[in-house]
Amino acid sequence: MRTPDAAVAAANHPSTGDAGTSFTATPREFGVGARLTLAVMADDYVDVILGALRSADATGLEVQTGKVSTYVSGAEQDVLRYLSQVIAGAGRSGAHVAAAVHLSHGCPGGVSCDIPEGGAALYSEIPQLEPTGIKTAADWAIYPLADGGSGTAAADHMRDIYAAIDYAKSTGVTVTEDHYVTRLDGDVAQVLQTIAAGWILIGRSVQHVVTHATLSINSPSAS
Amino acid sequence: MRTPDAAVAAANHPSTGDAGTSFTATPREFGVGARLTLAVMADDYVDVILGALRSADATGLEVQTGKVSTYVSGAEQDVLRYLSQVIAGAGRSGAHVAAAVHLSHGCPGGVSCDIPEGGAALYSEIPQLEPTGIKTAADWAIYPLADGGSGTAAADHMRDIYAAIDYAKSTGVTVTEDHYVTRLDGDVAQVLQTIAAGWILIGRSVQHVVTHATLSINSPSAS
Repeated sequence: MRTPDAAVAAANHPSTGDAGTSFTATPREFGVGARLTLAVMADDYVDVILGALRSADATGLEVQTGKVSTYVSGAEQDVLRYLSQVIAGAGRSGAHVAAAVHLSHGCPGGVSCDIPEGGAALYSEIPQLEPTGIKTAADWAIYPLADGGSGTAAADHMRDIYAAIDYAKSTGVTVTEDHYVTRLDGDVAQVLQTIAAGWILIGRSVQHVVTHATLSINSPSAS
Repeated sequence: MRTPDAAVAAANHPSTGDAGTSFTATPREFGVGARLTLAVMADDYVDVILGALRSADATGLEVQTGKVSTYVSGAEQDVLRYLSQVIAGAGRSGAHVAAAVHLSHGCPGGVSCDIPEGGAALYSEIPQLEPTGIKTAADWAIYPLADGGSGTAAADHMRDIYAAIDYAKSTGVTVTEDHYVTRLDGDVAQVLQTIAAGWILIGRSVQHVVTHATLSINSPSAS
């Protein structure tokens, strides 16, 4: 397991841009975070969702609940631990749960952040999560948003997507390729860690990288 | 409203690649389609979901229900009509509904399609959808996956994302910018049409473009 010290070290690791510029950027400065929509298919969904949120460790995070999704900002290790605990917590109710997870890095979109100029990227470690004991199936997609470059640094989103899928095949989750997505089957923590790994590995060389996954737990059609 | 003849014409419209190559490609050859995860937060979710699927018009579509999401492939007009009818149909039950919608174009990912070489793009019309009478709030993100290019055709994913957001502001939906996503509020049909418009407009010059949205209906926290 990763120690808290290692997480702090990763959060403060100097990052290096494509141009070789070295500087210090934290995950928060880089707009690292997530949006989560948690759906519980039962009449008592409000209680299940609130219980799952209460039981999760939000240390180090900014959490804002919106109309459609909850925004979670902080270091990767903290964000992923929180998502894993919330989603598995809802799954522990026994109800059929669907969770839409969106991890973002580099603030593409309407609300921007002060990331360094020059295509700089962020060096982060892959989060290490405690197994939850809850199984999930996830439909996963990852999007490196690089423009241009040349030589070995030339933008090639398919190369980066395939590298992330290849890495996923080494993590112990069951990987199945499908239209538009890659299906991952395993423990909630293992699946989220695999998704985060692709996102972080690509993020070491691409400033904007996002990944989306829909996780399903306790589906009646799962057998 | 768009006529069926116009839809057929759009499906067969000759597409033009970045290099000016003219050829005929259909939406299906281009891997146009969607994945949908529909979550209904009520004990009778199975009946609500099956009822919504039954009441929707799947003409012209290939629909495959998977463990996590349903894959829908066909021309844009047909795909969007189906999504709008299914999601609004579930919302009409009065239950709190969350729908994860993923529109894809150009087959980025594990299962590829035989799109033309040379970065060719696809010309499609923006779908026109009948209002559903069901209101939704959606968290929306769009990802142009272009590599390289030069001059005015140079890849610039932020330029394309902002153009899609600007277009959204002209459609009559309420647009609110947030971290990682743009919030769209309006009728289910209007919101989906806006999302599809950004995806199709970018797709006229970028071969791979995907968009994700999470739609929420009847949220108890919506007021």
